[in-house]
Amino acid sequence: MENKRLWGGRFDRKPAQAAEAFSNSLDVDRRLAEYDVVGSIAHAKMLEHAGLLNGTESKKIVVGLSEIKTELEKGTFVFEPSDEDIHTAVERRLYEKIGDSAGKLHTGRSRNDQIVLDERLYVRDLINRLDIKIKTLQKALLVWAKEYPDLVMPAFTHLQHSQPILFSHWVLAYLEMFQRDQDRLSDALVRVNVAPLGAGAGAGSSLPLKPEYTAKLLGFPKIFTNSLDAVSDRDFLVEVLADLALVSVHLSRICEEMVLWSSAEFNYLDISAEYCTGSSALPQKKNPDIPELIRGKTGLVFGGLISLLTTLKGLPLSYNRDLQEDKAPFFSAADTVLDSLEILASVILKTKVNIGAVEKSAETGYLDAFDLAEFLVKKNVPFREAHRIVGAVVKYAAAQKKKLSELSLAQLKEFSKLFDRKVADVLSAKNSVRNRKTAGSTNPALVALQLQKWAKLLKE
Amino acid sequence: MENKRLWGGRFDRKPAQAAEAFSNSLDVDRRLAEYDVVGSIAHAKMLEHAGLLNGTESKKIVVGLSEIKTELEKGTFVFEPSDEDIHTAVERRLYEKIGDSAGKLHTGRSRNDQIVLDERLYVRDLINRLDIKIKTLQKALLVWAKEYPDLVMPAFTHLQHSQPILFSHWVLAYLEMFQRDQDRLSDALVRVNVAPLGAGAGAGSSLPLKPEYTAKLLGFPKIFTNSLDAVSDRDFLVEVLADLALVSVHLSRICEEMVLWSSAEFNYLDISAEYCTGSSALPQKKNPDIPELIRGKTGLVFGGLISLLTTLKGLPLSYNRDLQEDKAPFFSAADTVLDSLEILASVILKTKVNIGAVEKSAETGYLDAFDLAEFLVKKNVPFREAHRIVGAVVKYAAAQKKKLSELSLAQLKEFSKLFDRKVADVLSAKNSVRNRKTAGSTNPALVALQLQKWAKLLKE
Amino acid sequence: MENKRLWGGRFDRKPAQAAEAFSNSLDVDRRLAEYDVVGSIAHAKMLEHAGLLNGTESKKIVVGLSEIKTELEKGTFVFEPSDEDIHTAVERRLYEKIGDSAGKLHTGRSRNDQIVLDERLYVRDLINRLDIKIKTLQKALLVWAKEYPDLVMPAFTHLQHSQPILFSHWVLAYLEMFQRDQDRLSDALVRVNVAPLGAGAGAGSSLPLKPEYTAKLLGFPKIFTNSLDAVSDRDFLVEVLADLALVSVHLSRICEEMVLWSSAEFNYLDISAEYCTGSSALPQKKNPDIPELIRGKTGLVFGGLISLLTTLKGLPLSYNRDLQEDKAPFFSAADTVLDSLEILASVILKTKVNIGAVEKSAETGYLDAFDLAEFLVKKNVPFREAHRIVGAVVKYAAAQKKKLSELSLAQLKEFSKLFDRKVADVLSAKNSVRNRKTAGSTNPALVALQLQKWAKLLKE
Amino acid sequence: MENKRLWGGRFDRKPAQAAEAFSNSLDVDRRLAEYDVVGSIAHAKMLEHAGLLNGTESKKIVVGLSEIKTELEKGTFVFEPSDEDIHTAVERRLYEKIGDSAGKLHTGRSRNDQIVLDERLYVRDLINRLDIKIKTLQKALLVWAKEYPDLVMPAFTHLQHSQPILFSHWVLAYLEMFQRDQDRLSDALVRVNVAPLGAGAGAGSSLPLKPEYTAKLLGFPKIFTNSLDAVSDRDFLVEVLADLALVSVHLSRICEEMVLWSSAEFNYLDISAEYCTGSSALPQKKNPDIPELIRGKTGLVFGGLISLLTTLKGLPLSYNRDLQEDKAPFFSAADTVLDSLEILASVILKTKVNIGAVEKSAETGYLDAFDLAEFLVKKNVPFREAHRIVGAVVKYAAAQKKKLSELSLAQLKEFSKLFDRKVADVLSAKNSVRNRKTAGSTNPALVALQLQKWAKLLKE
Repeated sequence: MENKRLWGGRFDRKPAQAAEAFSNSLDVDRRLAEYDVVGSIAHAKMLEHAGLLNGTESKKIVVGLSEIKTELEKGTFVFEPSDEDIHTAVERRLYEKIGDSAGKLHTGRSRNDQIVLDERLYVRDLINRLDIKIKTLQKALLVWAKEYPDLVMPAFTHLQHSQPILFSHWVLAYLEMFQRDQDRLSDALVRVNVAPLGAGAGAGSSLPLKPEYTAKLLGFPKIFTNSLDAVSDRDFLVEVLADLALVSVHLSRICEEMVLWSSAEFNYLDISAEYCTGSSALPQKKNPDIPELIRGKTGLVFGGLISLLTTLKGLPLSYNRDLQEDKAPFFSAADTVLDSLEILASVILKTKVNIGAVEKSAETGYLDAFDLAEFLVKKNVPFREAHRIVGAVVKYAAAQKKKLSELSLAQLKEFSKLFDRKVADVLSAKNSVRNRKTAGSTNPALVALQLQKWAKLLKE
Repeated sequence: MENKRLWGGRFDRKPAQAAEAFSNSLDVDRRLAEYDVVGSIAHAKMLEHAGLLNGTESKKIVVGLSEIKTELEKGTFVFEPSDEDIHTAVERRLYEKIGDSAGKLHTGRSRNDQIVLDERLYVRDLINRLDIKIKTLQKALLVWAKEYPDLVMPAFTHLQHSQPILFSHWVLAYLEMFQRDQDRLSDALVRVNVAPLGAGAGAGSSLPLKPEYTAKLLGFPKIFTNSLDAVSDRDFLVEVLADLALVSVHLSRICEEMVLWSSAEFNYLDISAEYCTGSSALPQKKNPDIPELIRGKTGLVFGGLISLLTTLKGLPLSYNRDLQEDKAPFFSAADTVLDSLEILASVILKTKVNIGAVEKSAETGYLDAFDLAEFLVKKNVPFREAHRIVGAVVKYAAAQKKKLSELSLAQLKEFSKLFDRKVADVLSAKNSVRNRKTAGSTNPALVALQLQKWAKLLKE
Repeated sequence: MENKRLWGGRFDRKPAQAAEAFSNSLDVDRRLAEYDVVGSIAHAKMLEHAGLLNGTESKKIVVGLSEIKTELEKGTFVFEPSDEDIHTAVERRLYEKIGDSAGKLHTGRSRNDQIVLDERLYVRDLINRLDIKIKTLQKALLVWAKEYPDLVMPAFTHLQHSQPILFSHWVLAYLEMFQRDQDRLSDALVRVNVAPLGAGAGAGSSLPLKPEYTAKLLGFPKIFTNSLDAVSDRDFLVEVLADLALVSVHLSRICEEMVLWSSAEFNYLDISAEYCTGSSALPQKKNPDIPELIRGKTGLVFGGLISLLTTLKGLPLSYNRDLQEDKAPFFSAADTVLDSLEILASVILKTKVNIGAVEKSAETGYLDAFDLAEFLVKKNVPFREAHRIVGAVVKYAAAQKKKLSELSLAQLKEFSKLFDRKVADVLSAKNSVRNRKTAGSTNPALVALQLQKWAKLLKE
Repeated sequence: MENKRLWGGRFDRKPAQAAEAFSNSLDVDRRLAEYDVVGSIAHAKMLEHAGLLNGTESKKIVVGLSEIKTELEKGTFVFEPSDEDIHTAVERRLYEKIGDSAGKLHTGRSRNDQIVLDERLYVRDLINRLDIKIKTLQKALLVWAKEYPDLVMPAFTHLQHSQPILFSHWVLAYLEMFQRDQDRLSDALVRVNVAPLGAGAGAGSSLPLKPEYTAKLLGFPKIFTNSLDAVSDRDFLVEVLADLALVSVHLSRICEEMVLWSSAEFNYLDISAEYCTGSSALPQKKNPDIPELIRGKTGLVFGGLISLLTTLKGLPLSYNRDLQEDKAPFFSAADTVLDSLEILASVILKTKVNIGAVEKSAETGYLDAFDLAEFLVKKNVPFREAHRIVGAVVKYAAAQKKKLSELSLAQLKEFSKLFDRKVADVLSAKNSVRNRKTAGSTNPALVALQLQKWAKLLKE
């Protein structure tokens, strides 16, 4: 077979070599190969079902494709320089295996609907893999939370100590974030899970194809409703990539905290040396490389999202070659997020919390000032007034270099007659968390319930 | 009341004027004013319900807030330069109205949870308004499709004529896209619709607050599960903004086509002069400004998405002042999309299709070549072979400057013995669309069914 | 004058009100008003010079425009709802002032070249203002550096202590960054400073215009070379906006450090209360709002850059209405950067360094380990070997909870015979900085020279 | 040599395999290998010059490195899985070749300054290569312009015919754009061309290094001024990437026009079949793939810019591992632009202009209306009035389905008495371009001069 291109009947001249090189997408497409074969097998079966292939032809094609699948899995499939894309490579190989019957496979199909099929199969798998990796990270976080269920630390607003919270409450905040990521991806799946085969080059076919049949074979709950849209639509890629961008935001936030907390000044965390590196110049260094790298890779994911949106902007319907550029940014964002989720889970399982440093930190910064204000509120002082009184108390205590709990009742009474002995019960970090009452708060009993809930949810 | 700031008890010095000016967010926040008041009314009622306000206090506060709401609606509310944000403005005015009881409103609340409440109320409304505007545009598109139900036009791939399709089929492709936008927004709503009040500054409260009560009053189906997450989470803004970016992609695509099709060369569309402008220099110009502007505004929406993601990247928990910057990009993207949807609907209702030009165009470019190939496939010619044969036919016809339908049967038979008289039934644009068979294709009967489906869906 | 639009002769119908509202750009353009008038005055003078206006006409126009300029400066200019853009507003007002002679002003000009002129005049001014603000910040940094010329602090890599440096050396790093920003803007100015008038609607004019004359009046060193390019080119906006993005990167880096260093854990900096705010809920808080806000606003600038690039992507020549959208993102990025530079300078001048905390920090973390390794290198030990030896010393010292300088010579000699008494001279943070030798290093004498250099550079 | 890592003395445990895999940067770094070796050779020579290596050692190292360079060039260099980055790979190989003397190479150097050196050497080369490729494209454009020096086409504003211009004038607009790209890159080079060696890990060295010597050997006109800045600065990457984004904007604009103009409706261009592809489904297709792909790849470059900016945002000084992520987006943007420039030049040289279609198009759309207005202006009619008159003439002519040149003088005089016989000289597309007068306009004589200028500029 001389001309392995899937087109060319009307062409006088062969493509310029530079043009072939420039437009070749095989390097990027390669990971779609198995999906392409799986899709083609379903397509061949449908063609038989629709009476467009006889049983012999169909069997020949399916067997050939199955062999190709095995070659791909084993890594023995040899791509040739002339394979302009993954579809061409597979069809070329099929010709080599079964001869001219291969020419019937592309019946009622175009690369326009075929590539979308491959992408949808890939993204469906990806969502599955993301689901697993997110759970892996959530489980690691849960292990972490359970290791230090009652450890009190300062919450931060503006990177200033704000109120005492449980370390486990802080961990649970991230469980929530990653759960939303799961939920978003699972919503996206509904829109990913739409079979495009049958749309052909964009107008459908005059052959009696059975798109529902292919869809069923491939496990798609529904098929496209508009052929033009079917081959032009890359919304599902943008949606999933935007979801990945949010996963990255969450990763970057926890990694930022891990880097901060590994500093000598914070000293809250001790990441295992296995996950740190040293310096080629400075002999004493132990660097939190993994969280830094994950944080740095956020750029790649945001950039991928912008790449894809830019490529789609203002494209007239239907397929345009620009769409080839949808893959590279998507794939690299997907790989980055998958890898980051997995490695972060491992790092967390090997990171110790320096209980002493954290507890000491929780006792500085007047974290119980809010509790003191709410003490007054319970005595019917308007909150604004209470806030002002306690502000003055804090100023006084700071000048004396004392904690609030170190002020005498007499000293407190200078600021408000309403202070009494019970004040002692609301001051100190431990009292503060214990006194939290509201659902969703850092109250230890409520946090414990949350830990149980998550343990159940993540068990499956 | 001298000090209208909501803090300051521990401060010796007043903020520098430049600092106040730089950090003032009122210009941007202003649109949240009514949501802030509505949220505060619910909060006051909850405080009474929880026994933290007595009936008199609560009533006073609610009446005062209701008056403020009226002032805001009437545009008589006067913002003062010293109002540092919307919350301060409302509370300052409440003091003016009801005096020191106003100081009880902020009980069990922080600006950290309050601002998220305002944002969630706003976004919930926004999704509602987007729903209406998207439907408005879909209805206009449907009117357009119904006006030209059987008009045949060329489909394009690579901006080259590919196959004949119905104009109405092209319109329906956009109905699908905007429907996905609706679906995505409606999925997002579930994550928007979560009440954050009770999270306070991030750790919850020691007061017996009833967050479920506030949630119920404000129509939230559920409340936050982690107080730290509740005040740090801006995922819902990113998610909705990413959804808006996809709406923009769709708008940019249809507008690109409208601009192209309004060119002298295409001449498919005639946009009403009401929606065009002329040139200050060139007397003959009639420009498709609205589609150009909508296309141009895509940048603003993509940029807004990147703004928000950048701001969130690497932020440690929980609230940081950086988060103030979540609003400007979100609001301007939201306004842009709302306005674009509405005006585009109006433009479409006033845009005539030049039937003659479109039909003529559909007869050029060998749009029926694919049909000729499928004709051979039905005679059991492998598609690849059929593709090659028809490629040669096209080359021959082009050299003769003839359409395929103008070739004689004898001429066709030179290329394949299998051509027969029935070839005439598959050639020409009109035959082509009629011969489409597959679900979702451009077949007129199927398209008619789709039009009915949409008419029903969009009626209510 | 009924029809104030600058076009419309060929139009039967007036623009739809919604279309006017949607395409009106006055809110954004407004800041270009004075540039528009200045440009128009120069244009009128050129028209006289070219014999296209007589002296009386020209004088009338110039006087009218000058009055308009005064109105704009005084804020008495009244924009009308029907003013579709800034050019229309000015020309409408000119008609009101001088009647039909106003109709001669637009001779040989189009809004296409006029708007680029306005933008170039604006950006030229902006670069000037940026120059001043950057210098303001650099001067504040220099004051800071001079206040603590010899203070030793830890340098950080990976947010881990790496080596001792002077605080003033750290400050100087930012002076370098902002200097590069200046240099880039000054390179950009050459490309901004090109006069576009005379390009008309894109093809030039058949009138004997004198573009060089207008250019000279307006202080442009050169004029455009291609009329089509002149009206399509927005490169200068992208270039300057990319420069602003880098300024923002630098601002975000120093602000990140200021926020970190204001934390209780670092406690390096004490930002004056004038530039901090408190919490509406937590009475004890003092938050570094200004650096947080500046860091958060980075998003806005990056987003603006993407907005502009997106809008330009794939635009065919020459002017398209999409280009109207070049202004909003540019202006808001420019304002943000100008304001951020200025306020940060003020904050820095009011921020004290906690000398004790910094010095103490510089003595922890084995910052002198590198010096110890270089000590061995000077004794001809290969650096790799020295690195390994000192790594082991550090491990030993850490196990003993000792500083390197607290190890005895005997203990050191266990690791290498080459250690001798002179080791004492290289250990400790202060010795370390003193021993730095290379140009550009943190050596106090070299840093002092740098401070002198900058003092001179920033004086003018 | 067992431990090939450049650090580890103080570490008890080896890195986890997953951590090594995640943080390995070799795949991306690989292209820096030769720069790394060249830099190391210069560094070794400097060490000898500074007395830190003796002649024998230095010679051994230089010879070893030179052999490595040859291996890299020949492709025989074998990377090992344990090579954590390019520096490690080179130093590991050097150990294999020359034994322990290799351990002296890293004297006075850190990977922190070494990687910036490699990047700067790479970017310097890149600018050089971009310079050549841009010139290649400019030359192809010039060939194109010279092939059709007098062909008249419509200029477009809003994709509507605006005025007649020369095709060569349109081509020249792009020459200008790409020239600005060159100029920007050449300005950037000054900031790229700064030697960072000697900064070490960020604080400089206590050894008597000679950074100026290394700089001289490597052809850097100057060295860094602040060691901390030297290892933290990635401005040069952002600046060049922003320049690449503008090249991409220009590429996307010309490619958009080439795609449009290749449509059946425009039919201005005939891209050689060598640079087109067909369809796997539609036998008649000939698609302008290369311009589409280049346009689509714009996304990748914009995305790369955002990636890099995001990674840098808010990074505290000095080196952080996040910076590893600066390379992938930069390299892929650079490759994309280099390849796009080259292939586009080839495509253009093989693209014919359909003179007939273009000329016909230039005679429709009342392109000479502006000339008619300027005719009246020369008779002292205020331009606004002339604009209105000609607007009415156009409306009348359109109703009569006539060109302006087909109206009789009598008909014209109905609109203004001032029309006379000479009107004929200004009407028609050819007259219009001939009548342009202003510098930079589309006047054929002026365009011819421009062509000469460019021929000269691009010759060397």
